[in-house]
Amino acid sequence: MDMTSAWLLPEHISDVLPAQARHIEELRRGLLDAARRCGYELVIPPMLEHLESLLSGTGHELDLKTFKLADQLSGRTLGVRADSTPQVARIDAHLLNRQGVARLCYCGPVLHTRPSGLHGSREPLQFGAELYGHAGLEAEHEVLDLAVDCLAQAGIGETVLDLGDTRIVRGLLAGVPVDAARLDAVVAALAAKDASALAEATAGFPEDSRRGLLRLPGLYGAVDEVLAAARAELPARAAIAAALDDLQALAVHVTRVHPGVRLGVDLGDLGGYAYYSGSRFAVYAAGSSDALLRGGRYDEVGAVFGRNRPAVGFSLDVKALAPLVAPQRLRAAIRAPWGDDAALRAAVRRLREQGDTVVCVLPGHGHEGEEFDCDRELVEVQGQWVLRAL
Amino acid sequence: MDMTSAWLLPEHISDVLPAQARHIEELRRGLLDAARRCGYELVIPPMLEHLESLLSGTGHELDLKTFKLADQLSGRTLGVRADSTPQVARIDAHLLNRQGVARLCYCGPVLHTRPSGLHGSREPLQFGAELYGHAGLEAEHEVLDLAVDCLAQAGIGETVLDLGDTRIVRGLLAGVPVDAARLDAVVAALAAKDASALAEATAGFPEDSRRGLLRLPGLYGAVDEVLAAARAELPARAAIAAALDDLQALAVHVTRVHPGVRLGVDLGDLGGYAYYSGSRFAVYAAGSSDALLRGGRYDEVGAVFGRNRPAVGFSLDVKALAPLVAPQRLRAAIRAPWGDDAALRAAVRRLREQGDTVVCVLPGHGHEGEEFDCDRELVEVQGQWVLRAL
Repeated sequence: MDMTSAWLLPEHISDVLPAQARHIEELRRGLLDAARRCGYELVIPPMLEHLESLLSGTGHELDLKTFKLADQLSGRTLGVRADSTPQVARIDAHLLNRQGVARLCYCGPVLHTRPSGLHGSREPLQFGAELYGHAGLEAEHEVLDLAVDCLAQAGIGETVLDLGDTRIVRGLLAGVPVDAARLDAVVAALAAKDASALAEATAGFPEDSRRGLLRLPGLYGAVDEVLAAARAELPARAAIAAALDDLQALAVHVTRVHPGVRLGVDLGDLGGYAYYSGSRFAVYAAGSSDALLRGGRYDEVGAVFGRNRPAVGFSLDVKALAPLVAPQRLRAAIRAPWGDDAALRAAVRRLREQGDTVVCVLPGHGHEGEEFDCDRELVEVQGQWVLRAL
Repeated sequence: MDMTSAWLLPEHISDVLPAQARHIEELRRGLLDAARRCGYELVIPPMLEHLESLLSGTGHELDLKTFKLADQLSGRTLGVRADSTPQVARIDAHLLNRQGVARLCYCGPVLHTRPSGLHGSREPLQFGAELYGHAGLEAEHEVLDLAVDCLAQAGIGETVLDLGDTRIVRGLLAGVPVDAARLDAVVAALAAKDASALAEATAGFPEDSRRGLLRLPGLYGAVDEVLAAARAELPARAAIAAALDDLQALAVHVTRVHPGVRLGVDLGDLGGYAYYSGSRFAVYAAGSSDALLRGGRYDEVGAVFGRNRPAVGFSLDVKALAPLVAPQRLRAAIRAPWGDDAALRAAVRRLREQGDTVVCVLPGHGHEGEEFDCDRELVEVQGQWVLRAL
């Protein structure tokens, strides 16, 4: 065992050191509290599940991203969660089993076998919120509002919101006989907006489907223009028309309620996982091409757990958010001498109960640099422990 | 793929549902805040590391508890952390690299291949605090104080604190030629207080070592009696004498500063991991035989990372704490109608900014049972949105 590199971490895995860790913890609390104030109840799904429950109905990409383990207790294959959304759908479908609306949120690490991008982490801290049991567009409105509020609460200033809808690609592929490999190629070409790969992947498709698919990568930008072009150029199919109507309605809602958000549509966007079944949205920080947050409707994920419930939700990586916003200022701390003196201990306790950080200087360490910025110290004056400015 | 049991979780793995999840989140925040008020800085070590860094200097038991994975990026073997203490020692030794005292805390999930007991979880939520860079007993005092304060802060009432010291067993084994398997057998027999297994495991040992080891399982109980017996009956070796002196001093400290804690010593206790090198302590809830919290001195863990720093710390499982204490009462929520009306939205936003939970009832769901206990509703009276008691 070579110990010289015992401190080296695997690629795309990192420690989070104090200042950044506190920042992430504060963002985490702010996001969970924002969700709670909107009625979203916290759940904590496990890090490990049987592989088939983690992956059911979620597609190939999530499978490739999921670390597999052998369970010594059962001999079965376990997966380490790479995405908590299917877990929360399982909790809604099976454990809560409510008839009406359920609002759930969560925040915890997920692990990926490979990073999402060149600089991506393999251990995002996934925060998300999910609304089950309502099929109408009001569910999208509420979840979009919460998503926008969460980013504002975190301190993200200018944002760009792109709307899309999975039913458009599904509508174009309806009736086209494709196997899984071909479908993956179409989806990959669309996700990469790669025209020549798309032309190759759609070779032999019925002409109107093919023309529509080839047009999709260009159908992004301002809402009115893109929707008008889509209505004119995409085949007139019911699923596509319904999707375009819903996009129009969502755009009206966002424009009215979130006038500060720059809105666009991107009909070819297929980033994220394959479980989306309807509307989709992605939020970008101004000037960035990686989405900060992705969400949408995924009515079919719960089906394998025995209940096909309407579902809309979103998730984001708290670690990716952190570098984009300024941390809260750490309240300056108080330095105190070390000792068992009852009056000193009482004074320290009182200050801590008020929420102050009190660092007791261990014997022999009085001249070390303090990591906490101490602006006061506790000193004894005429038998009383009092605070003195440093 | 058999979907009928897709909702079944692996043994000793479970979901945490809303009421309990909120309880755990509140405990988590309370513990992290208690540590911060004492000057402990938060770090977030990763879930995954190269196996050799996770396990270096930590012994066989942690190895058996650690899930192993293949890294697709490097081909190397990764481990999913089963204990965060060695990770934080690595952060102190390598990343922070401070000359003086460092105080660090953390809270996150760890995974175990096998549960610790019959009803143990394989996914504890480990919270811990570690103090580096001070070799004197004052470090033990501070960490013991924080441990006791953390449990009090969590709401654990009566507690029993058992003190021990690894140097006693190490002192008794000094000069005894044992291989790893025999050492494991001795440790297991001591941990189980199994006299016949201990007799077998120590067969052939030098007489004074053997007599001492066989005496250890009986050396627990009231501080003064046990320490007197140990001084009389254990061989007079420097390491053992130093350990007994330190135990005496720690007992004086705890009795003076924490009069409400029931104190005992247990010289044969070897529960927890093998990295402890000096004083050890365990805290039990009154009437329970499973430790809630374990800690002690482990000066040698950082050595493999290039720096042999004095270290004292403790950790606990937040999930195991939760059932023992009453959750905070959830503040009652407010029900509001759904709609885009600007005045309604402003009223909802204002209430949420004040910290209230406002649940907007989606169209068609007005008669569903509310999961949040709503005691007020937002209604429009003469053009104004006002709160009305329910």
